[in-house]
Amino acid sequence: MNVAIVGVTGYSGTVLYSLLVNHPQVTQINLYGHTNEGENGDVRYLDELIAGYHGQHVPLQAFDPEKIMADNDVVFFATSSGVSSQLAGPFIKAKFPVIDLSGDYRLPDPATYEKWYHKPAADAADLAQATYSLADFYAEKTNYIANPGCYATATLLGLAPMVQQDLIDPDSIIVDAKSGTSGAGKSLSQLTHFTEENDNLQLYQLNKHKHIPEVVQQLHQWNNQVNAIQFSTTLLPLTTGLMASIYAKVKSGVTQESLMAAFNTVYADHPFVHVMDGETPSLKQVVGTNNCDLGVVYNPVTHTVMVISVIDNLIKGAAGQAVQNFNHLFNFNETTGLPTLPVFA
Amino acid sequence: MNVAIVGVTGYSGTVLYSLLVNHPQVTQINLYGHTNEGENGDVRYLDELIAGYHGQHVPLQAFDPEKIMADNDVVFFATSSGVSSQLAGPFIKAKFPVIDLSGDYRLPDPATYEKWYHKPAADAADLAQATYSLADFYAEKTNYIANPGCYATATLLGLAPMVQQDLIDPDSIIVDAKSGTSGAGKSLSQLTHFTEENDNLQLYQLNKHKHIPEVVQQLHQWNNQVNAIQFSTTLLPLTTGLMASIYAKVKSGVTQESLMAAFNTVYADHPFVHVMDGETPSLKQVVGTNNCDLGVVYNPVTHTVMVISVIDNLIKGAAGQAVQNFNHLFNFNETTGLPTLPVFA
Amino acid sequence: MNVAIVGVTGYSGTVLYSLLVNHPQVTQINLYGHTNEGENGDVRYLDELIAGYHGQHVPLQAFDPEKIMADNDVVFFATSSGVSSQLAGPFIKAKFPVIDLSGDYRLPDPATYEKWYHKPAADAADLAQATYSLADFYAEKTNYIANPGCYATATLLGLAPMVQQDLIDPDSIIVDAKSGTSGAGKSLSQLTHFTEENDNLQLYQLNKHKHIPEVVQQLHQWNNQVNAIQFSTTLLPLTTGLMASIYAKVKSGVTQESLMAAFNTVYADHPFVHVMDGETPSLKQVVGTNNCDLGVVYNPVTHTVMVISVIDNLIKGAAGQAVQNFNHLFNFNETTGLPTLPVFA
Amino acid sequence: MNVAIVGVTGYSGTVLYSLLVNHPQVTQINLYGHTNEGENGDVRYLDELIAGYHGQHVPLQAFDPEKIMADNDVVFFATSSGVSSQLAGPFIKAKFPVIDLSGDYRLPDPATYEKWYHKPAADAADLAQATYSLADFYAEKTNYIANPGCYATATLLGLAPMVQQDLIDPDSIIVDAKSGTSGAGKSLSQLTHFTEENDNLQLYQLNKHKHIPEVVQQLHQWNNQVNAIQFSTTLLPLTTGLMASIYAKVKSGVTQESLMAAFNTVYADHPFVHVMDGETPSLKQVVGTNNCDLGVVYNPVTHTVMVISVIDNLIKGAAGQAVQNFNHLFNFNETTGLPTLPVFA
Repeated sequence: MNVAIVGVTGYSGTVLYSLLVNHPQVTQINLYGHTNEGENGDVRYLDELIAGYHGQHVPLQAFDPEKIMADNDVVFFATSSGVSSQLAGPFIKAKFPVIDLSGDYRLPDPATYEKWYHKPAADAADLAQATYSLADFYAEKTNYIANPGCYATATLLGLAPMVQQDLIDPDSIIVDAKSGTSGAGKSLSQLTHFTEENDNLQLYQLNKHKHIPEVVQQLHQWNNQVNAIQFSTTLLPLTTGLMASIYAKVKSGVTQESLMAAFNTVYADHPFVHVMDGETPSLKQVVGTNNCDLGVVYNPVTHTVMVISVIDNLIKGAAGQAVQNFNHLFNFNETTGLPTLPVFA
Repeated sequence: MNVAIVGVTGYSGTVLYSLLVNHPQVTQINLYGHTNEGENGDVRYLDELIAGYHGQHVPLQAFDPEKIMADNDVVFFATSSGVSSQLAGPFIKAKFPVIDLSGDYRLPDPATYEKWYHKPAADAADLAQATYSLADFYAEKTNYIANPGCYATATLLGLAPMVQQDLIDPDSIIVDAKSGTSGAGKSLSQLTHFTEENDNLQLYQLNKHKHIPEVVQQLHQWNNQVNAIQFSTTLLPLTTGLMASIYAKVKSGVTQESLMAAFNTVYADHPFVHVMDGETPSLKQVVGTNNCDLGVVYNPVTHTVMVISVIDNLIKGAAGQAVQNFNHLFNFNETTGLPTLPVFA
Repeated sequence: MNVAIVGVTGYSGTVLYSLLVNHPQVTQINLYGHTNEGENGDVRYLDELIAGYHGQHVPLQAFDPEKIMADNDVVFFATSSGVSSQLAGPFIKAKFPVIDLSGDYRLPDPATYEKWYHKPAADAADLAQATYSLADFYAEKTNYIANPGCYATATLLGLAPMVQQDLIDPDSIIVDAKSGTSGAGKSLSQLTHFTEENDNLQLYQLNKHKHIPEVVQQLHQWNNQVNAIQFSTTLLPLTTGLMASIYAKVKSGVTQESLMAAFNTVYADHPFVHVMDGETPSLKQVVGTNNCDLGVVYNPVTHTVMVISVIDNLIKGAAGQAVQNFNHLFNFNETTGLPTLPVFA
Repeated sequence: MNVAIVGVTGYSGTVLYSLLVNHPQVTQINLYGHTNEGENGDVRYLDELIAGYHGQHVPLQAFDPEKIMADNDVVFFATSSGVSSQLAGPFIKAKFPVIDLSGDYRLPDPATYEKWYHKPAADAADLAQATYSLADFYAEKTNYIANPGCYATATLLGLAPMVQQDLIDPDSIIVDAKSGTSGAGKSLSQLTHFTEENDNLQLYQLNKHKHIPEVVQQLHQWNNQVNAIQFSTTLLPLTTGLMASIYAKVKSGVTQESLMAAFNTVYADHPFVHVMDGETPSLKQVVGTNNCDLGVVYNPVTHTVMVISVIDNLIKGAAGQAVQNFNHLFNFNETTGLPTLPVFA
């Protein structure tokens, strides 16, 4: 297959490229930049843009929907929120397969999008064509896959069994999530200035994070008793990795054993999700992989369950999950081309 | 005054020395090691034990209670839990002033101590002479001050106004606490091996951390409706600093304004505690100080308040608070000799 | 004394404030911003600009040379290179005491300045009034002190005894210097973006670093055989601290003993410089102090001496040395108000 | 092919496993522990020993040379120095293919080994059977490959063109090398205690590092004028990655152009070595790869060339190079199974 990437120079885009270049079903990767990319003869090549990408002498081509659809079987948007919605229209209208890593098509309701993103929403008719697709719960064939956000992925995978099986008080969910700085992207900011962030913890967007509505929307779909979550995000002094520390009051009669039964049942045939019983994973044990490792620990004194959910925010939380959705979409084995052993043993 | 330090080579002990050496009321600091310290003529000096301590050519003397009491006005134990209880007896019996940074005299009930510490408790009669003293709520004159633990300090200061004024559901308290590695001390462990901990988050002692009972005991004393808390500790890839992320459901009618009124009232005359309204402090803004900075943010959607409490775990969480208790004990100004401006602007 | 700081919001300026606020000879610190600072009634206060600076409710005043000289006994410029030279003229003409942390007056020759700084040099007549003053070798009373750069300080202190006493081949000096990111200042850049710099080493300005000419100029003044050095700078994944690894071929007959004799003689009465014989200091043993720790190790196989020189780049390499120069200038004890024990034992 | 790994639980061994498990020519990987491994029925499995190694349910078998040779086509020793020499004898005598990541067979002269390693050397007859094999300069078929050390690899690749083509003064070589902590292994030590190493630089084994003799031996073989190097190693506050900063005086007439001609010629057909002209690589641009990136910068003022050589110390500096040697040994394509794109773009 020929695949297109729009936005390869962002962190997610580059990781996506590195996964697809090793994917056995991918014949060629074509890269696209902005509309005038390379027009004046000043062509940019991937190996000149990304340090250490020796031999990847692939040009960035101008963004031209017709040409992209002619030359490729699928397009990945690794563009920022607010950008995808300006580029995707022609693909949607043509029912061309798209996997979009941005947030632009995750929320079907334009008003909700605009409330949380503070940007104009995508066209409502286009939004109706998109499917929010948590890859480990991939359900329906769709032309436009809205790939979930990193925080949403870790949170949803940690909560799914308990919410789906109605094991917790729906008003009691608290998520204390922490992420490495790569999730904040390449744009410079005081928050991610090394001197400020090293040896530090900084919260941001408390009660206002863009991933809250997509989490609530999915949880509500699983269990309509869930209408809100308490959710905080803290920037960690590390590059890659995300931990969601999830707390909830359990319903009467729930025990460590019944919790584990639920997790083990739900994730029985999910190759990327691993559950620890009464123990907690470290963040680093998933970095470099498409895994989500979960630790489930019930405290009978407080009737509270804590679930630790860890992922690589750029792989499972972005590019890896996009490839997993790509595998589903084209009926490849779900695990094809995806790493499962952590780097730096 | 002449002051004694037992256990100067641990991280807390060294920081304690560095504070006392600049304390205007301290004339001389005497250091003590183990019982046979220096006996065979092999005297150890502080400047040879701690890198960069040029000019601090102070010998470690043998541990001899009679001599310590004869030569000093007060003794600080910066020893590990399980050690203080073996050393402190003679001082308690003599009603000599002691400030103990360890956990050995924080829990009056020997059975509770043994349950959480997995070590023999101190003598029950001795325990009855000790006072748990959160320095910002210093209450009564006492000969034996049990200085609180680092996690307990951040948690209690973050919860005090809400618990004292009965603003939160007593069964809903969740504390997601994170600390730099210096809190784990100088002993080598796989958890604190650089290659394991760098770029990582690791939980430890979930629902079993030694600081849980001292927190619950103090909260219960403030409000007898509080009998338990959900409490987790995560090791951060940084050296110094501690953040407690505290969540609780508020009682009916409580708002951001009423929460702030409580915090501002309770901490009106507390020089080391600073409260932010609707914003959150970064961990690093207190490192190097005896401050506790608090951020209070109410979420009306979930009826949940989040309080972020940050301290320097070695200063406010150990040595600095010990000096603050020392200032109280001897009627010096509470702030004497204690740093309030963060290092590394 | 009343002291003025221009540029308090930069890292060096804030550290300078934190030192002067504890300096026993300083009565009042006045802060100055740009020319129109506070003019429209929108006064900025230090405690609102720097996180954690509770209680430091000091306003930034408009930059007005006449008023600064009327209200103060000395002015510190903690401004960037290229800025000081635009502000300092009136003070030089009035022979008012200035301590300038920038590079603008370190090089007497305007052409040399412009070659290395790529900016217009200060007025030549003004330059002639300034004195480059490595504080540990403070020599002459002067109205305008050009405080050395951080890399220059570590390098010069490491080389001084060997160059002054002609112990090394003057053409063989190689300095492999490494610094934490705070030396690069508050300005955002890709180099200091956390995601890029964490877990990384990046060289910058190889053979072009601005501190090269001030080092060579001072070495040449000590020993006119020295006309050049090989000098590299590497950005470290840490906030504060600088290590200069210095190599040189020794002259015939030089040994570890004769090297140590030179270092011990030269630094006999220098309270901030400490020399280790055959061992090397760690970077962290000086962080938080105004010390420079040196390790001297001769290798008889290669006839090469390695000197490790470590400093806190913001204290000894900037603000602390400025206070040390201030102490010299006003005949206070050289060590007044300067920290000597490292933070985070 | 069936391959054996002895010592899989060390960092190098685990990385080796992760490479071989994806190697298309490897059918099965057998793991071996100590002699009594699993004897009492208490079998250890890889997925229980290494966090995140889900699905790698491979048992550690007892170390039995006969059985290892019967069941495998090659054995990798990822054991510590001092261990390999006690295990390798039977394989050498049987002329069975061995790739040894330890230092035990790198130095043909037992006396030299004992001087630098402070341990008994391997049997002299066995030593004579081993070949030191820098994989990018793989020369001769051999049964026993002594895989180079991490520091040696970066240093030799950075120096090879200049030493082979006699471009530098053989007495002027200075290597200021820095490595992440994973190079120091899993054993706990104060040096690698997180609280000590974070935000720090620590030199170790100055002029005494074990890799010095293997570097000198190889350089001398390339150019018998080279008999010594000045070599220092500094521990970096990061996990993985190694930078050797190499300095040398050039011979008369050598220029940037002639240096580049040499590097480009020597490395023309070396797929893992990339040379930058007048620029320097960052450490992180090779982490996760088997690459060695070199930057060559000549300074005409000091007649000194600086070469920056960066590698992943666990891949190129250990396990990856071992696989590269394995590919050579069995006539596979040199690049088979080896990663070339850095992780964490």
